[in-house]
Amino acid sequence: MSASTPRPHDNSRDADLRRRARSVIPGGLWGHLNAAGLPDGYPQYFERGEGCRIVDVDGREFVDFMCSWGPIVLGHHHPAVEAAARRQAALGDTLNGPAPVLVDLAELMVAMIPHAAWCMFEKNGGDATTAAVTIARAGTGRRKLLVARGSYHGAVPWCSPSLAGVTAEDRAHILHYDYNDVASLEAAVDQAGGDLAAIIVTAFRHDMGRALDLPDPAFARRMRELCDEADAALILDDVRAGFRLALGGSWETIGVRPDLSAFSKAIANGYPLGAITGGERWREAATKIFTTGSFWCEAVPMAAAHATLTELARIDGPALMGRMGRRLRDGLDRLAGRHGVAISQSGPPQMPLVLFADDAGFARGSAFCSAALRAGAYFHPRHNMFLSCAHTEADIDRALEAAGEGFAAVARLG
Amino acid sequence: MSASTPRPHDNSRDADLRRRARSVIPGGLWGHLNAAGLPDGYPQYFERGEGCRIVDVDGREFVDFMCSWGPIVLGHHHPAVEAAARRQAALGDTLNGPAPVLVDLAELMVAMIPHAAWCMFEKNGGDATTAAVTIARAGTGRRKLLVARGSYHGAVPWCSPSLAGVTAEDRAHILHYDYNDVASLEAAVDQAGGDLAAIIVTAFRHDMGRALDLPDPAFARRMRELCDEADAALILDDVRAGFRLALGGSWETIGVRPDLSAFSKAIANGYPLGAITGGERWREAATKIFTTGSFWCEAVPMAAAHATLTELARIDGPALMGRMGRRLRDGLDRLAGRHGVAISQSGPPQMPLVLFADDAGFARGSAFCSAALRAGAYFHPRHNMFLSCAHTEADIDRALEAAGEGFAAVARLG
Repeated sequence: MSASTPRPHDNSRDADLRRRARSVIPGGLWGHLNAAGLPDGYPQYFERGEGCRIVDVDGREFVDFMCSWGPIVLGHHHPAVEAAARRQAALGDTLNGPAPVLVDLAELMVAMIPHAAWCMFEKNGGDATTAAVTIARAGTGRRKLLVARGSYHGAVPWCSPSLAGVTAEDRAHILHYDYNDVASLEAAVDQAGGDLAAIIVTAFRHDMGRALDLPDPAFARRMRELCDEADAALILDDVRAGFRLALGGSWETIGVRPDLSAFSKAIANGYPLGAITGGERWREAATKIFTTGSFWCEAVPMAAAHATLTELARIDGPALMGRMGRRLRDGLDRLAGRHGVAISQSGPPQMPLVLFADDAGFARGSAFCSAALRAGAYFHPRHNMFLSCAHTEADIDRALEAAGEGFAAVARLG
Repeated sequence: MSASTPRPHDNSRDADLRRRARSVIPGGLWGHLNAAGLPDGYPQYFERGEGCRIVDVDGREFVDFMCSWGPIVLGHHHPAVEAAARRQAALGDTLNGPAPVLVDLAELMVAMIPHAAWCMFEKNGGDATTAAVTIARAGTGRRKLLVARGSYHGAVPWCSPSLAGVTAEDRAHILHYDYNDVASLEAAVDQAGGDLAAIIVTAFRHDMGRALDLPDPAFARRMRELCDEADAALILDDVRAGFRLALGGSWETIGVRPDLSAFSKAIANGYPLGAITGGERWREAATKIFTTGSFWCEAVPMAAAHATLTELARIDGPALMGRMGRRLRDGLDRLAGRHGVAISQSGPPQMPLVLFADDAGFARGSAFCSAALRAGAYFHPRHNMFLSCAHTEADIDRALEAAGEGFAAVARLG
């Protein structure tokens, strides 16, 4: 990406777009990409991306550690993905039925994911989690769904973090447990009695604003046992983590296999796709439910997904991102020590989070991020970040230079 | 599109893909694009599309009247749309926030759609209808939703045509009325009492397998009055019809304005996008709800939508599709008379349906479609069809030749 004229404090184009948006889009922007809550200086609008670099509408370039909040796993404009997408687009995208690449992709997923006997595709992660729950209910004839307190599974009424416009009945059959807490899980299973349809669980605990917790293998094994005893479905919500931690599903790393998995985000390197995989026990139920969308057979994202997963396997993407994530983590620890700033780092190295000690209002995290942003690195103060396979050692080192500015800013806060 | 070698009865590639799919995709394919219920000879898999022509994986080319079940409104590979998509894709698609085209598109929608003060974007039509209902509930603090018996609003638990995996609570606050029946609407409003949040209605009655009914203007005006009296939201589900019948929303044709509209399908000529538009009264509620998805800020479909809507306005797409639809309708009537076959044609000319007299099991409709398919036209026996702006008089006349074979086949049934 060509160097842009540095204009560190000129965000006039971003400000102009935000002003125009305020009148035609409620609140300026819906959902998780609304920059209103981000630290000072963060842009809302972006001009372009290339590899692990992004450029905002005022021409500022950043080494990016959000990867579009997950989808970009090989880097923007990865040549193999773009070539596959272009080839399919020249033929057709949204047709009267799927293109042959649907079958190629489903076969690849089933071959790559040990628990998967079959596969279905959607557009949103929430399409996949919702349909997985519906399949579990159809396959058991039962209703209760166990959800970890605070976990995010989508922005539809049964699971949205906001209750505005949600009715009590939308969540009538949901019971809660605490992530990694076996006793709370067993209590929720007891509470469900003979009506347990499924337990849904994220690949690791990635609730916003608190340290990330990896799954305790004993907890995961107990969840598997409880589902087996009840003939209920263990649904792994791998929407956020899938294909970054492992190519066969994120719980392959701890040896526990789900019945149903929901994927999205990284599956097609930014092209819109969701997927459900499931075991043989749930095939008939998956046939019985009705789930569809106008663009779910779109062929271009499937071609992109096939190329993305093939490339991730070829280069062992999860290992590569793990190495770069550890290089970032080690560097941040060194810099924090040098500046006398106390931090805690958590999560898998491919999806890290940096929190500051004594930082209830995120003032330190925000100061760190703002200063690092001005110096050319795009970090997040509260949400897990994302590595991509486009991050090189040089990119990590460049980002660490920017992080040094961030730690200096935190040190100045006293 | 170059002429393909005619192989009228060789569907071996399609059969092979179906065989492979049966093992890795439940039931062979989910949802409305599953070809299992289509007449004899219909392909499941497609190789490519160009304009109003589609080619299946066995090389058979058809004049297409399904337009990918709605999305293709300018024809496959429309140059202006493809150029806009390519320009944006070269910059970036899924980024850490939207691209400037988001604001351009929202401004265009608000300028084009008289009831719209604001706009939000999603991926599925069901995302848009679900969020519109959530906005109505958030904005009224009430719960009841009136839905026309038999109407399709998406494939999520509150509205899916299948009850497999759906709980009673998913539909706890839904009350039914009959489309175009004022008395049933008033009765449902009475039943909702002080708890009426919204009435949702499709642009016209397009329930599968029965004649299409245009909205009775008196019925639509009474719905508007009832919503005004209750300060409830009139939600127009314009997902299927939007931008084919009128560019300002389909009920502009009868002079009744909704509070909220859900769009998708034709908005971006096949690129995946949904949209909600709303009036000022509902802006705050739209700000309060949380609705989002990993790919909802994708810039390429927005660039495609901007180009699609601009082109539809430039050429007056609804009028053009209306003319071609009437040419098809008149031709089909003439041919049916010539063959002594009784048919009924219904729906707006841009979205026609042909039904046969005394055809409870659709044997005549299926015979018509199979024979017409063999002769090169892709019709549907039970679902409304779709015209596009790529259909020329020559395409319609070519399809009518094929339809002649269809009517001959029906006449042979006796």
